[in-house]
Amino acid sequence: MLHFDCDYMEGAHPLILERLLQTNLEQTPGYGCDIYTQRAKEKIRQVCNCPEAAVHFLVGGTQTNATVIDGLLRTYEGVLAAETGHINVHESGAIEASGHKVLTLPQTDGKVQAEDVDRYITSFYQDATYEHMVAPGMLYISFPTEYGTLYSRKELEALSETCHRHHIPLFIDGARMGYGLTAIPADVTLEDIARWSDVFYIGGTKVGALFGEAVVVTNPRLLTHFFPIIKQHGALLAKGRLLGIQFDTLFTDGLYFRIARHANDMAEKLKKGFADRHYRFFMDSPTNQQFVILNNRQKEELHRHATFETWAVIDESHSAVRFATSWATREEDVDALIELL
Amino acid sequence: MLHFDCDYMEGAHPLILERLLQTNLEQTPGYGCDIYTQRAKEKIRQVCNCPEAAVHFLVGGTQTNATVIDGLLRTYEGVLAAETGHINVHESGAIEASGHKVLTLPQTDGKVQAEDVDRYITSFYQDATYEHMVAPGMLYISFPTEYGTLYSRKELEALSETCHRHHIPLFIDGARMGYGLTAIPADVTLEDIARWSDVFYIGGTKVGALFGEAVVVTNPRLLTHFFPIIKQHGALLAKGRLLGIQFDTLFTDGLYFRIARHANDMAEKLKKGFADRHYRFFMDSPTNQQFVILNNRQKEELHRHATFETWAVIDESHSAVRFATSWATREEDVDALIELL
Amino acid sequence: MLHFDCDYMEGAHPLILERLLQTNLEQTPGYGCDIYTQRAKEKIRQVCNCPEAAVHFLVGGTQTNATVIDGLLRTYEGVLAAETGHINVHESGAIEASGHKVLTLPQTDGKVQAEDVDRYITSFYQDATYEHMVAPGMLYISFPTEYGTLYSRKELEALSETCHRHHIPLFIDGARMGYGLTAIPADVTLEDIARWSDVFYIGGTKVGALFGEAVVVTNPRLLTHFFPIIKQHGALLAKGRLLGIQFDTLFTDGLYFRIARHANDMAEKLKKGFADRHYRFFMDSPTNQQFVILNNRQKEELHRHATFETWAVIDESHSAVRFATSWATREEDVDALIELL
Amino acid sequence: MLHFDCDYMEGAHPLILERLLQTNLEQTPGYGCDIYTQRAKEKIRQVCNCPEAAVHFLVGGTQTNATVIDGLLRTYEGVLAAETGHINVHESGAIEASGHKVLTLPQTDGKVQAEDVDRYITSFYQDATYEHMVAPGMLYISFPTEYGTLYSRKELEALSETCHRHHIPLFIDGARMGYGLTAIPADVTLEDIARWSDVFYIGGTKVGALFGEAVVVTNPRLLTHFFPIIKQHGALLAKGRLLGIQFDTLFTDGLYFRIARHANDMAEKLKKGFADRHYRFFMDSPTNQQFVILNNRQKEELHRHATFETWAVIDESHSAVRFATSWATREEDVDALIELL
Repeated sequence: MLHFDCDYMEGAHPLILERLLQTNLEQTPGYGCDIYTQRAKEKIRQVCNCPEAAVHFLVGGTQTNATVIDGLLRTYEGVLAAETGHINVHESGAIEASGHKVLTLPQTDGKVQAEDVDRYITSFYQDATYEHMVAPGMLYISFPTEYGTLYSRKELEALSETCHRHHIPLFIDGARMGYGLTAIPADVTLEDIARWSDVFYIGGTKVGALFGEAVVVTNPRLLTHFFPIIKQHGALLAKGRLLGIQFDTLFTDGLYFRIARHANDMAEKLKKGFADRHYRFFMDSPTNQQFVILNNRQKEELHRHATFETWAVIDESHSAVRFATSWATREEDVDALIELL
Repeated sequence: MLHFDCDYMEGAHPLILERLLQTNLEQTPGYGCDIYTQRAKEKIRQVCNCPEAAVHFLVGGTQTNATVIDGLLRTYEGVLAAETGHINVHESGAIEASGHKVLTLPQTDGKVQAEDVDRYITSFYQDATYEHMVAPGMLYISFPTEYGTLYSRKELEALSETCHRHHIPLFIDGARMGYGLTAIPADVTLEDIARWSDVFYIGGTKVGALFGEAVVVTNPRLLTHFFPIIKQHGALLAKGRLLGIQFDTLFTDGLYFRIARHANDMAEKLKKGFADRHYRFFMDSPTNQQFVILNNRQKEELHRHATFETWAVIDESHSAVRFATSWATREEDVDALIELL
Repeated sequence: MLHFDCDYMEGAHPLILERLLQTNLEQTPGYGCDIYTQRAKEKIRQVCNCPEAAVHFLVGGTQTNATVIDGLLRTYEGVLAAETGHINVHESGAIEASGHKVLTLPQTDGKVQAEDVDRYITSFYQDATYEHMVAPGMLYISFPTEYGTLYSRKELEALSETCHRHHIPLFIDGARMGYGLTAIPADVTLEDIARWSDVFYIGGTKVGALFGEAVVVTNPRLLTHFFPIIKQHGALLAKGRLLGIQFDTLFTDGLYFRIARHANDMAEKLKKGFADRHYRFFMDSPTNQQFVILNNRQKEELHRHATFETWAVIDESHSAVRFATSWATREEDVDALIELL
Repeated sequence: MLHFDCDYMEGAHPLILERLLQTNLEQTPGYGCDIYTQRAKEKIRQVCNCPEAAVHFLVGGTQTNATVIDGLLRTYEGVLAAETGHINVHESGAIEASGHKVLTLPQTDGKVQAEDVDRYITSFYQDATYEHMVAPGMLYISFPTEYGTLYSRKELEALSETCHRHHIPLFIDGARMGYGLTAIPADVTLEDIARWSDVFYIGGTKVGALFGEAVVVTNPRLLTHFFPIIKQHGALLAKGRLLGIQFDTLFTDGLYFRIARHANDMAEKLKKGFADRHYRFFMDSPTNQQFVILNNRQKEELHRHATFETWAVIDESHSAVRFATSWATREEDVDALIELL
């Protein structure tokens, strides 16, 4: 059986496990006050070229989104997001559970446009009754998006400029950041992400770590007292060094980017395999998630030998399905899948 | 100046003030444990033909929506509502503040369709990842809607049947209930509302009272321990009898319906006035809110002599505006407004 | 039957009802944007000698406490209060419902001491693990307290100084403010309250109004965007002018203070009546609530002719009971009660 | 330097790391739908002799407490706990953040008494105003307590009986469960814990795992739909198998109990070392946390060679300090510490 269900089916990159083994019986203080966490933070500040940034390590994506958003907003504010945004769809109401409304924006290929953000905020404050409505207090986007698509340099800069013109922070969910930055058409770097956003995170769970997300607060005045907020959200790992060691390893010798590129290479190969056989795509994704349209018979047959997720029902006889590669995908599995087509 | 801004510009129906005066120095226990409140509850149970119903009096609409919804849902559930629903637009995030997501449904003229409710719930549970999403735990509709429109008997029955087939309660926001029930094309009664919904409220604030909403829980097992929930939401009036006296008065000799009908009569007259002069309508409303399309010049001129609300900008030169009548609207003001056209 | 259960058994002072009647059919905009509300705000600013203060009118006490506290605190902060404080005991968890812990302080006669506040905050920040605990973000006190007792000038000044030295705001619950300010031993004025606190409110519900609490924010920078916070808490009255008219009346010609003094006079007479007959007091209260210790037989006999609240069970044969007077208490009722003793 | 700061200074038991290594590149579905998680659940059900129990794996203690408590309570209910309980002191308000008040009970050595629970609930419902107060909806205790002390068989049974007589569930925080069950004076087993409680958890973070807490719901009807509640609390680990593998290993061949006993043995040795030298104890703990009273000079000197936590300041010249052993403590370190005394 070939598995392309998602990008978190394996454990961690072997180098990470090796480091966890080596350090296993060392004694360090808890909650991230250890040397490995300090080192990881420093390396992340460097790769982001952001010496003033505050870096925090949390465990998972939903948790990180809920904690950061709650930290950034005042009680009467909501978060702008694409209607397909992860926080609006797949987080069991974690954002609302901390009291905030997700204010939805139209999307194309999972992306929001600066014009729509501008229009939302401008018309919000033009409405005479705006104090009876939820104020847009920040913008959430994901890079890459839930559809595997990417914001271009120009788009990101425009979103950043729009947010800052309206005095709201831009938060980038980077659960798959590595896959976004190393995609062939990507024209932004981690430095750019850091420059244009106010808070973002670098996903570990889906890119080589057992778990973990590195939150980078490029303007720390926006998110003061984040430690008790993390604790209050149940997001503080007792043995914080586990996060430090993992991110220290990922950001040593460019491992994070190298393994992310591998996932994209595998996805490209798969994409070509589908394209060569004239399959249609639901979405043109340059990253590790590929969305293909299958008819029911194709889907059924493929399911005998491979696992993958049904993304959307197109019509009675067709579905969009998702094949996800990861840092751990074996080329032989990709070849075998293409063989099956 | 003629005022058609909204339906809460005056105080209360004179009979209510008279009753408040008569009883002013009587001493009664607080929090609704008085004889007037008991009487009002009994009268409401009778007019709803619902002897088992629990009746509670709250102060305002947003408060009532937030309190009832929080009382009906479990923490992981959300409330289905039209995207134009009051709880989704004009309550400053009160629903989310108590932890619940508003799950939006498409709307036509402010109304949701049973098919859309059915489709939402059915496809929700067909989605393999549904436990990562917010479960639809109830349906919220308003009667009449925020656009003044009405659900028909058939539509209401279908919504009720759909909700109950999916084991979720139907909650009806009746902030303007009187104006809905007494509209010319209305084919439902308060008994019908009580039969088809699980919880609904009869608005006083906009229909003759100083303030107050009467919540009717037709199936009290759905909403146990509502008293501390009301208190926790800051919705418990110390001098509860003020609510009791008002609703006792409104439901004596059909006052509530009589004064509601007056508002509708005034609105009909106004509507005819606009129609006779070939004005276009933004929405065909049979109740006390009339939505008319004006060009900028018309709007400006009318604003010199009358106040009304801009509802939506249609294009650069046209707006949809709202004229609201109420139980207190004087016919001479309506005539004067028509004169101005 | 004589009623001394609480101070909200009657309606409103007749002058208030008269004003409501006079203005009943006037048309004004909603939500406090009317002339009466503006006037009331101005009069309150004047009597507080606080021209820069922001004044807001809410409906009830629990609601006001929850809304102000939620507005003042950041998500990770809690509110310091006497363990007997209303917010800690009698608000059905309204403070916690908006996410904040009540941090309890020891009390004597319902009052907290500046030393205890200082000790709490100082030792909090000396604790190495303080970021794992709820930070004290403000102090809540009530004037008079739930036991009818009063802070002296010196005590209030010390509390204010302590709070400000530790950079947290002082919030005073004045649900019975009038009864506190006009008590014989009171040595503080409304100006003092305004000078020493950051936010406080002047209770109307218990002092002559049908309902309503006037929140005075003496330093408005501490509580920005309070309007949507009020709305989100369901605390925004549609016909806001009802609050404006009531407070305008109460603060015209010193009515508020005059009627409050009457309640205190009645309480003093009652107190003397009990003292002359050698009853013991549970608490020495100089305001409108008198706490007397009765044995079971006395309590039973008195209950045949009078209603009052049991406050605490002292031992098997004695209870502390509360007699509350109000602006509306008739001297003949007090005399009749004393007669009964 | 010798480290006795806490029981989470090392990584995981080597057998756990070995299993993580062996399975690292296997592909499994996420969120706990893997074979290792199923196995771990089955083993835990067996060791608890509780075939009907639902078992869930969460990441950390604060997170588990907040999620379980939110799952068990209705919105208007609070959780009874010792005033020294972890949820009341050291969780940054995580319980309140999900809307629930912690209702404090008096404690002795960190433990609550059945009589106090009974008295609280009984007098709560005797209070005529109880609907204005937060209803006690469950009891939280920790085993062992935050002071390392243990409930006896008899005490636990009494607490359980009291809770069930009052129809509220008993929840046991077992962050250090292993250290409690294997302490010399312990007279309860995991089966007893399962029989007497409604929900409890078996801590992994402090007893051999990298992280993880196993929640056992012995009466699953009490906590339905726990999956979305976990997700909403940000407590769902994407690579759920990491928890499954760890608990599968811990509950194979009694590893969990064996390593817990080691920590207790080390603590006993340390305790004897202090006692032999006539040190006084702040608390008589039979588990892995030892609380000793040191004078300032002793503390200072010891701090040159060892790390430990200051628990409480006794007076100007004495402190209570805590020495914690763990599954990983080396006997040579204990000997060296005793040597230092």
